[in-house]
Amino acid sequence: MSSHTALVVLEHVGIFVFAISGALTAIQKGFDAVGILVLAEVTALGGGVLRDLIIGDNPPAAFRQTTYLLVPLGAATVAFFAHPVVARLNFTMLLFDAAGLGLFCVTGTLKALDFGLGSVQAALLGVTTAVGGGLLRDIIARDTPILMQKDTDLYSIPAMVGTAALAAADRLELPMAVAAPVAAVFVFTFRVAAMLRH
Amino acid sequence: MSSHTALVVLEHVGIFVFAISGALTAIQKGFDAVGILVLAEVTALGGGVLRDLIIGDNPPAAFRQTTYLLVPLGAATVAFFAHPVVARLNFTMLLFDAAGLGLFCVTGTLKALDFGLGSVQAALLGVTTAVGGGLLRDIIARDTPILMQKDTDLYSIPAMVGTAALAAADRLELPMAVAAPVAAVFVFTFRVAAMLRH
Amino acid sequence: MSSHTALVVLEHVGIFVFAISGALTAIQKGFDAVGILVLAEVTALGGGVLRDLIIGDNPPAAFRQTTYLLVPLGAATVAFFAHPVVARLNFTMLLFDAAGLGLFCVTGTLKALDFGLGSVQAALLGVTTAVGGGLLRDIIARDTPILMQKDTDLYSIPAMVGTAALAAADRLELPMAVAAPVAAVFVFTFRVAAMLRH
Repeated sequence: MSSHTALVVLEHVGIFVFAISGALTAIQKGFDAVGILVLAEVTALGGGVLRDLIIGDNPPAAFRQTTYLLVPLGAATVAFFAHPVVARLNFTMLLFDAAGLGLFCVTGTLKALDFGLGSVQAALLGVTTAVGGGLLRDIIARDTPILMQKDTDLYSIPAMVGTAALAAADRLELPMAVAAPVAAVFVFTFRVAAMLRH
Repeated sequence: MSSHTALVVLEHVGIFVFAISGALTAIQKGFDAVGILVLAEVTALGGGVLRDLIIGDNPPAAFRQTTYLLVPLGAATVAFFAHPVVARLNFTMLLFDAAGLGLFCVTGTLKALDFGLGSVQAALLGVTTAVGGGLLRDIIARDTPILMQKDTDLYSIPAMVGTAALAAADRLELPMAVAAPVAAVFVFTFRVAAMLRH
Repeated sequence: MSSHTALVVLEHVGIFVFAISGALTAIQKGFDAVGILVLAEVTALGGGVLRDLIIGDNPPAAFRQTTYLLVPLGAATVAFFAHPVVARLNFTMLLFDAAGLGLFCVTGTLKALDFGLGSVQAALLGVTTAVGGGLLRDIIARDTPILMQKDTDLYSIPAMVGTAALAAADRLELPMAVAAPVAAVFVFTFRVAAMLRH
């Protein structure tokens, strides 16, 4: 599997887990089928669309490949039918979110580097890719953004550390095939550890 | 009248009716003149600007032709002076909104197709053009987005069906001069019927 | 100092003062260190990023020069450590905000003109640069946008008058080296006078 293929597969996995988190938020808010779908799509694709608008990749990847749009549709369907089970699984939702966080940090940073942005900017866009969708989710759902809440520092800090480390690895010309998965697993583990400590 | 001219005229009509809905929301919220103008402009132009940013048409149409900016100014003025009459005309506001919905679905889908996007993506951008301004209006006015509310499924579903049908008609190479107005009237009628049923 | 250098210096000053206002809002809301940093960055850079996305300057200036990202980091740090002093200095915060307003109106209008936009559009993008970051700040912090509030008409009106005058000066081919600082000081003074009158 080429590194490009791996990137695309990882992105689809990240999109699925973020879409689940968006759909569950919509269900918790009492939104109906359309609301669930919209929030699944926005949460899953919003961060990447922001990144692509900023780096000037038009139309954004989310609008070039139909699978990017269909995966959140599938996730919304799963969440819709499974929500009597899933709705109270708050911890599961946070686990999904942590996985998406790690994956999007990496894909976002790599894409920004690929488009020639500087290390600091690429790291920031990695974080944007990872937290942008969730921020849009919280704005639309009228929640105080998770990103800003006092007890959730250890949401964005893992993202910042992971993307900064990945951008540094790129500067040092370390092999991305190793550095990328390590960074993703690092962000996920750091985030989950922070959750368990609370 | 060429199909391009028709598109431009339709867009201005859609902009006017959406601007009225934005201005009336601002008046209901107790915003002052500037707030009314800003909400009129954002509601009217927000969906189209989102579409143009995504398809990469820079600067967006709304920033290329002064009439696009002046029509919401006119609508805000009308709403401002007529609001003692208009403010309690909730149904009128919803009718205006339904007309804008139908028009923007069509113009948004056609423009995205014109820029070479796929059918699914063009349909989605048609919906984005139609509901994006209203979503921004509700976010700024701090309302739960109409798009997400339980009883308003029949707001976005007509838009989705209409844009999907229009994108399908394009695939089948049906004449757009027929398909476009049919789709706009379909969305409007479907939406109004849904409102009357409630 | 060339007019380009002056523009860059002014932008950094404007970014600093807007970042302070964002950081203070975050502190007032009880957000933690990450929240303070995010709100400082968004408030400081959000308006300019919106402007650059609209005029099609990709990646936006804020993502091309690391100093644009570091200045809000510095401002957030200052606000964080000085907030026992600064937090109750509401008037100081408004003064900072007025200075940022004047500076961003001018830099935003000049950049849009530079990218070939029309006078009306350039004036509007000047206002967008100036008020866009604050609007995003208020949306994320879940406040009613200052822009829309009844008593704050004299926030955006100075901005509108200042950018319109600057765009008109450009049409009349008046020297920008004079017109630009005059417009910035005008907006600042108009805004401060409006604040003192209340």
